[in-house]
Amino acid sequence: MLPFERVTILGTGLIGSSLARAIRNRMPTVRLTGYDRDAAVAARADELGLFDDMADSAGASVCDADLVVFAVPVRAIGAAAEEIAADLPRDAVVSDVGSVKASVLKAMAAAIEGPDRIVPAHPVAGTERSGPDAGFAELFENRWCILTPGAEADARNVERVSEFWRRLGSEVELMEAGHHDMVLAITSHLPHLIAYTIVGTASDIEDVTSSEVIKYSAGGFRDFTRIAASDPTMWRDVFLENKEAVLSTLQRFTEDLTQLQRAIRWDDGDFLFDRFRETRDTRRRVIDAGQDTAAPDFGRDRR
Amino acid sequence: MLPFERVTILGTGLIGSSLARAIRNRMPTVRLTGYDRDAAVAARADELGLFDDMADSAGASVCDADLVVFAVPVRAIGAAAEEIAADLPRDAVVSDVGSVKASVLKAMAAAIEGPDRIVPAHPVAGTERSGPDAGFAELFENRWCILTPGAEADARNVERVSEFWRRLGSEVELMEAGHHDMVLAITSHLPHLIAYTIVGTASDIEDVTSSEVIKYSAGGFRDFTRIAASDPTMWRDVFLENKEAVLSTLQRFTEDLTQLQRAIRWDDGDFLFDRFRETRDTRRRVIDAGQDTAAPDFGRDRR
Repeated sequence: MLPFERVTILGTGLIGSSLARAIRNRMPTVRLTGYDRDAAVAARADELGLFDDMADSAGASVCDADLVVFAVPVRAIGAAAEEIAADLPRDAVVSDVGSVKASVLKAMAAAIEGPDRIVPAHPVAGTERSGPDAGFAELFENRWCILTPGAEADARNVERVSEFWRRLGSEVELMEAGHHDMVLAITSHLPHLIAYTIVGTASDIEDVTSSEVIKYSAGGFRDFTRIAASDPTMWRDVFLENKEAVLSTLQRFTEDLTQLQRAIRWDDGDFLFDRFRETRDTRRRVIDAGQDTAAPDFGRDRR
Repeated sequence: MLPFERVTILGTGLIGSSLARAIRNRMPTVRLTGYDRDAAVAARADELGLFDDMADSAGASVCDADLVVFAVPVRAIGAAAEEIAADLPRDAVVSDVGSVKASVLKAMAAAIEGPDRIVPAHPVAGTERSGPDAGFAELFENRWCILTPGAEADARNVERVSEFWRRLGSEVELMEAGHHDMVLAITSHLPHLIAYTIVGTASDIEDVTSSEVIKYSAGGFRDFTRIAASDPTMWRDVFLENKEAVLSTLQRFTEDLTQLQRAIRWDDGDFLFDRFRETRDTRRRVIDAGQDTAAPDFGRDRR
């Protein structure tokens, strides 16, 4: 038996459209309804035939759903939840795909009656692309999906959302929302902040032209440009909604960077060598855990 | 006519062994001699049949060469140059593959007579792997090789080394050594320092276990683990030999990071959005310049 039969996705960008495609592939009998407040994006999702129906309003999109998923930037979830609250069937489960969970859980609970049916989710998957054309059905396969239900969530609803993600090919983990935000601050939010920063810094060095930066980017810089090409609205919201955890991990990072800076200044080669040797092991563990390819250089096409 | 006919490579790790393989493929009549001061590495290079001869000493390896290439960590080049100086034929050209150029040029010039024949080179290519097994013949194809000859270098020798790298599939650029070190500080050295730092920081967060960091690394962190798996000796040397440029670009980076940190703390979403939007363009330019794949997520194998 399918965990849900009538799924509505609000937001049809990279994640929303991938979700629609994955549901189509894995649970083809599910009735799919889509909505996007950006008319051009909605029209494109319609053109691509990702949904059975594209609704004209957020409220109209949910009135027959048994699962509603917000796939919008995290700061927009509260307003979107308010928009659908009046039309939401009493037994529909409400979820999302946001990268921050404590504030999102709070925003959904404030707008929507029935805390038993709120089951926030975060599929840890994505690419640097945005929009309905960037999505693909396999995005969630072999990736983790973290659910962060509050204390009042009904266990049966949690299990249904878990089963939903397992059917899309993900491994599911339950976590307390605040802990999720700490874990993701270091594994995802800080890396993005650093990548955005260094790409910005490289554009502003006066002794090195920007075409030199591009030309010789294969020495390492190009890796950072990929992450720094991620959706600006999504990431603005992530940093503002997970402010405390991001600022605290950033503080740690800065201390560690200062220590390495000092070692360079004082010619402390032994310290540098020891730190650089330790980090090799982390790469091996990421590969062993199936979280990255073992191929050198990400198996990049060498053109 | 081949630019060189008897090439000696000192150091048979990732770069040295890739160079040997590339020469074999592209200039099969070249007589190749290898040397590695690490007996186990030398034995493995021998086993792989990468060279026509593996020499027992640095001096013996160069006595018949018309091109000698140092493929050792940059801080080891000075000593290696001293070691071969007495046995080096008068007309042999001397080069290297180091990631830092001003100090290497100086070290080679101090040890070797005849500044006309010193033509330092830096192929901007590599992977996170090390050792003779990690090398491959295509490593330098479609990559830039930067030559940084001093004022006294003979133009004919510069042209021969240029032609040598073009035959291996690289595009060749001439640059002043000090400028090279500034350009690489931002395009390669700083990115590596940042990656080493963040991977270290992630290992030391007490509220998040190291297995959680590994498990959820697909959110961005895993990208950094690749670069941070690079050879520790090589990178220790790079930072110490390019200290000034690295510290100065690091200072810029820290200022920019502090500015973003402040924007997060003060909820300045417009500032964040504008910065994040600008960096997207850099990614597009890297791809347009042929310096990275256009495939999303580096075209990573998704397992």
